[in-house]
Amino acid sequence: MLKIIKIGGGIIDDNLELEQFLKTFTAIDSPKILVHGGGKGASKMLNQLGIEPKMIEGRRITDQPTLDVVTGLYAGNINKTIVSKLQKFGCNALGLSGADGNAIKGSKRPIKTIDYGFVGDLTTESINKELFQLLIDNNITPVVCAITHDGNGQLLNTNADTIASTIAVAMSQKNEVELNFCFDKIGVLRDVNDDTTLIPKINETLYLQLKEEGVIFEGMIPKLDNSFKVINAGVKNVCLVHARNINSEIKTILC
Amino acid sequence: MLKIIKIGGGIIDDNLELEQFLKTFTAIDSPKILVHGGGKGASKMLNQLGIEPKMIEGRRITDQPTLDVVTGLYAGNINKTIVSKLQKFGCNALGLSGADGNAIKGSKRPIKTIDYGFVGDLTTESINKELFQLLIDNNITPVVCAITHDGNGQLLNTNADTIASTIAVAMSQKNEVELNFCFDKIGVLRDVNDDTTLIPKINETLYLQLKEEGVIFEGMIPKLDNSFKVINAGVKNVCLVHARNINSEIKTILC
Repeated sequence: MLKIIKIGGGIIDDNLELEQFLKTFTAIDSPKILVHGGGKGASKMLNQLGIEPKMIEGRRITDQPTLDVVTGLYAGNINKTIVSKLQKFGCNALGLSGADGNAIKGSKRPIKTIDYGFVGDLTTESINKELFQLLIDNNITPVVCAITHDGNGQLLNTNADTIASTIAVAMSQKNEVELNFCFDKIGVLRDVNDDTTLIPKINETLYLQLKEEGVIFEGMIPKLDNSFKVINAGVKNVCLVHARNINSEIKTILC
Repeated sequence: MLKIIKIGGGIIDDNLELEQFLKTFTAIDSPKILVHGGGKGASKMLNQLGIEPKMIEGRRITDQPTLDVVTGLYAGNINKTIVSKLQKFGCNALGLSGADGNAIKGSKRPIKTIDYGFVGDLTTESINKELFQLLIDNNITPVVCAITHDGNGQLLNTNADTIASTIAVAMSQKNEVELNFCFDKIGVLRDVNDDTTLIPKINETLYLQLKEEGVIFEGMIPKLDNSFKVINAGVKNVCLVHARNINSEIKTILC
């Protein structure tokens, strides 16, 4: 089973939590790929450099100065910090942006009502499956940051959830794949304030039912919609899990 | 023949020259590795962030804030810019810091009279030959930045000339290796102001003679001393060459 784990900014901003997670990640005894988001460092750095965040309709626009900052931070500082810590724990990690070995070739998001700037969209064909397979087959663990390229010399800021999902679907053509989204809960809860109400397994039928009951609502709906799309595209399981439980059974498995 | 090419800051700071070089580099029709230095961006960025450069006896000390800046810049911005441009030109480049796949494990320079901070020293054993061989054998071109790690979670700022030399020696155990140092002249000149006085080939006997004659002097002496050390350690040729001539015969070959 190939396990793909996506972590977000919260863990990255907390050094102790990050180290603990990376130890647990190292202990996963199967081929694995780590995909990481960015954390709050980008806003801080943009602020320090006096670069005004460009927002349209509440969404951040990736202009050239912003792209430079996130490239340095995501592909440089965060990626190499994670990789060097994993090496310390004995996991043979290798950091990748989408440009490296043409790992992920995106395309700049087309301008409709909003020009998001240098933001990448992906399809399953974006993933260089051969490269990921080569690394995995040689016991190398890819650590993927949220920067891709367009194949024409342009780097692109790309959503880490989308990267993780797209790698999962592409790799499921030749591997049994489990995709894990780490988030701040231990999984889907009947009562968001009560960890004992964890729902361990959800299939599409139960999902529709839980949505109707109002148990799954708001931000969880697109997360689960996306997860079932990924499952229907060939991924065996998608798990919603807290980073500390990544190598345990405490999670919600979507199947 | 495995060709290892080292470029310095001058090319990196000049976008047109960099693109021209990367086109020429792509055209080299043999396995190759690119090693790149940093350029002036680090000083500029440190300045913008209000970080005072720490100097002792005229040498820059890599403290933690400086390490963070150079990691972002070298392993992030510069490395990914080079890799994405090479991908555009059709060279399947993959960027590496020393932490990635444990490519280069250095050790923090011991404190004698000066504490250089987070600076890495290397030995031939520092190089993960198997990783470089795996990439090369799969038609992937490693692009190595001047950041290594100590295997214990610490990143280290490391001299790019040293990285190039050490990779060259390590890889010469199983490959015929040519190491190319790009610099601002077309090679060793009898008259530094006259390109027609290029000396195409220098062996150690001629080197000693040229040193005695005063033709080779000052900064060129450590460069050539190091080059002959590398040759005596197993590298076939070391070339001193202008970046634009990397794929031509206009160079000084040390042998």
